[in-house]
Amino acid sequence: MEKTDVLVIGGSAAGLVAAVAGKATYPEKAFTLIRKEKQAVVPCGIPYIFGSLRGSDEDIMGDDPLTQAGVDIKVDEVIAVDQKEKVCKTRNGSDIAFDKLVFATGSTPVIPKWLKGTDLDNVFTILKDKEYIDSILAKMEGLKKVVTIGGGFIGVEVSDELNKRGKDVTIVELLPHILGLAFDEEITIEAEKILRSRGVRIMTGQGVKEILGNGRVSGVLLNSGEKIDADAVVLSVGYRPNTALASGAGLDLNDRGFIRVDEYMRTQNPDIFAVGDCAEKRDFITRRPSGVMLASTGCAEARIAGMNLYKLSTIKTFNGTIAIFCTAIGETGFGAAGLTETIAKREGFDVITGTFEGFDKHPSTMPGTHKLVIKLIVGRELGAVLGGEVIGGASTGELTNILGLIIQKRLSIDSMLTAQIGTHPMLTGTPTAYSLIQAAEVILRKQKG
Amino acid sequence: MEKTDVLVIGGSAAGLVAAVAGKATYPEKAFTLIRKEKQAVVPCGIPYIFGSLRGSDEDIMGDDPLTQAGVDIKVDEVIAVDQKEKVCKTRNGSDIAFDKLVFATGSTPVIPKWLKGTDLDNVFTILKDKEYIDSILAKMEGLKKVVTIGGGFIGVEVSDELNKRGKDVTIVELLPHILGLAFDEEITIEAEKILRSRGVRIMTGQGVKEILGNGRVSGVLLNSGEKIDADAVVLSVGYRPNTALASGAGLDLNDRGFIRVDEYMRTQNPDIFAVGDCAEKRDFITRRPSGVMLASTGCAEARIAGMNLYKLSTIKTFNGTIAIFCTAIGETGFGAAGLTETIAKREGFDVITGTFEGFDKHPSTMPGTHKLVIKLIVGRELGAVLGGEVIGGASTGELTNILGLIIQKRLSIDSMLTAQIGTHPMLTGTPTAYSLIQAAEVILRKQKG
Repeated sequence: MEKTDVLVIGGSAAGLVAAVAGKATYPEKAFTLIRKEKQAVVPCGIPYIFGSLRGSDEDIMGDDPLTQAGVDIKVDEVIAVDQKEKVCKTRNGSDIAFDKLVFATGSTPVIPKWLKGTDLDNVFTILKDKEYIDSILAKMEGLKKVVTIGGGFIGVEVSDELNKRGKDVTIVELLPHILGLAFDEEITIEAEKILRSRGVRIMTGQGVKEILGNGRVSGVLLNSGEKIDADAVVLSVGYRPNTALASGAGLDLNDRGFIRVDEYMRTQNPDIFAVGDCAEKRDFITRRPSGVMLASTGCAEARIAGMNLYKLSTIKTFNGTIAIFCTAIGETGFGAAGLTETIAKREGFDVITGTFEGFDKHPSTMPGTHKLVIKLIVGRELGAVLGGEVIGGASTGELTNILGLIIQKRLSIDSMLTAQIGTHPMLTGTPTAYSLIQAAEVILRKQKG
Repeated sequence: MEKTDVLVIGGSAAGLVAAVAGKATYPEKAFTLIRKEKQAVVPCGIPYIFGSLRGSDEDIMGDDPLTQAGVDIKVDEVIAVDQKEKVCKTRNGSDIAFDKLVFATGSTPVIPKWLKGTDLDNVFTILKDKEYIDSILAKMEGLKKVVTIGGGFIGVEVSDELNKRGKDVTIVELLPHILGLAFDEEITIEAEKILRSRGVRIMTGQGVKEILGNGRVSGVLLNSGEKIDADAVVLSVGYRPNTALASGAGLDLNDRGFIRVDEYMRTQNPDIFAVGDCAEKRDFITRRPSGVMLASTGCAEARIAGMNLYKLSTIKTFNGTIAIFCTAIGETGFGAAGLTETIAKREGFDVITGTFEGFDKHPSTMPGTHKLVIKLIVGRELGAVLGGEVIGGASTGELTNILGLIIQKRLSIDSMLTAQIGTHPMLTGTPTAYSLIQAAEVILRKQKG
């Protein structure tokens, strides 16, 4: 029987980080990462294989971080876990004994059972699998009309990229706006405006009744009765956690089907951890179970699991997801962290919001200047920042990370008003009206008024 | 006699922010801003007038923020302040009575007295004055060879911009490296490499003995005896605070010649404040007097002064400068906040440093990906971040601001290791190896042994 100290199941972002952070913390232990795929793709990069990148070979995670850290890689699939004996059984017939086990089994695109036509040829999902993505690319070659069902960030990113490659793309979204779960309405409207100006058709508030076709896709029938011609359909209506293995091993799942974990990322078995899309999430602020799946959140969980494998640290716990994320449509970035105004109000928070529209360079006559909008959502009594949204240029991602830090550290509006920031004509907005501080001043004025 | 509640002297960044933030906090008070210049230029934008912008008209602060806030603007010069009577006398013969006074009188380029030839024609300084800058631009028209004396960030930025316009530029710097006060050596070497590759000549460790010429500049004589031909010289060897007015009024200056202030930005007279380049600065970490002059620091001080004019708040104090700043050479950004390793060690801190070199997009095959280097300087025992440096692309400024927040909030390496960050292929590095967290991991490994 093979033997390892720590066995990580799954080779995407969270699995990789759990193994590398764990090995760095406990260098004396043997670490093995087992994954099904010969080559792991960079999950966030997948939409860009359809446009900006020259193919899936440009979106490979690479094994260097693992091998350099001294983690063994095994390409195989765990098909059963024996908690009592502490042994995993693999598809290729191996038995691997472990001391600690980490589930990083990820998630799979949802294919709605009630939707007719999902089995037609040229109906695709965005599966995190290189060979499958390559097969989509090959099939897409001669096709022109693409309908994307679902306007979340995967649907939007894939659509924008396919549009870059000259496809005729239509997004059909059930909610009133695309990206409607991540942003407040005024931000989503801006996203729709930009995406439309780039040539993507968007139909919102529209349910899909059926995917039409005979053997292969020919169109999409909406609940309204309208038919849209389609040579291909991209189904991006969400992901569900891969938990059959965990559940088969007797580990608890929560009501949403995620593997239950505590703040050290441990399952009910203290020797078994779960991280990433398969692991239970709780919202940092509302404390409610969350369905958010993000590689960056998964990596934060994985780092915490890795550090706590053999020795717990109350300082290194995962205290709930702030759902921090960003995306780009053309040259415009969109970012969000914490609660949106909509969700904060629905959850019962008494909030004040402050929005400021400035620029990402200064003076705004500098070449390449982009509009920069910051919206803050602040708890009225506490004055702490509960959430923030950004529309900007190339610095949108890191601006969103500033918001993320402010939320995680429960910083107040006061600490933003007194913050020292660095500014430069090419790299930031003006020091006299830095958008983040200006938005805080809007809040201050509302607090007083 | 004219009368106002709050009189702000100086119309550059700090003066503007003091007036606007003050008026927003105390809307019932009358605010007047008095400045010499008809039009105030954006200070940080001045170097870019020499290249990226089409002239000084594109670098105007504009009066809108003041007029919209309800601040009166007066173009005139205060020539005397009577503390006892609370009256300012102006060059145009007005007497203005005030209740509170804010000095935002800024700074002026240093012209070394011992240096021969500074009075020659075509010897320029970077004075924050639109008409003077316009006159340099006009005189530069037909000139080819420029020598910049002083390789601080103003010297570097102006040189890079003049080089863009086809000038033949040489920087002469006394220290071993350009930008040597802001960054550690390895970062300055990178800056020199990039600047040289763009065609700027750099001579470091070289003192200037004399500016040569007969009526107008013909060259620069170095201490080494070498002569460099020059049609023009840009003298950028530092700035000194404008404090003659304050000192004439009987206000205390510190040893370095700045107006003494407390953490509310008050002078010894509680009705008189000072902010920006003319105001005393203390280092946030070393607690020593600092000579750092940055518009962004000045604006932070000004915001604090504005809020404390009539009602003090212990929450809103200025606790010392973190000297946070960023600059760009071509497409490459350079940023720093807090202490460099060199300064930390010189001041007696026991530090651990961690440097990580990654990318600003992911996978690094994404178009436009730029190398991203983060260096952290951490107190060995406390584990708190004392300083950080960044080399990167378009997100360098906001990444530096993340470091700034970490330093100001005295966050530890642990809180970086457990931080949730948002990532996106176009906008940030990879979640599996985000440079800031990776640099923290380097520190962690060194801490352990």
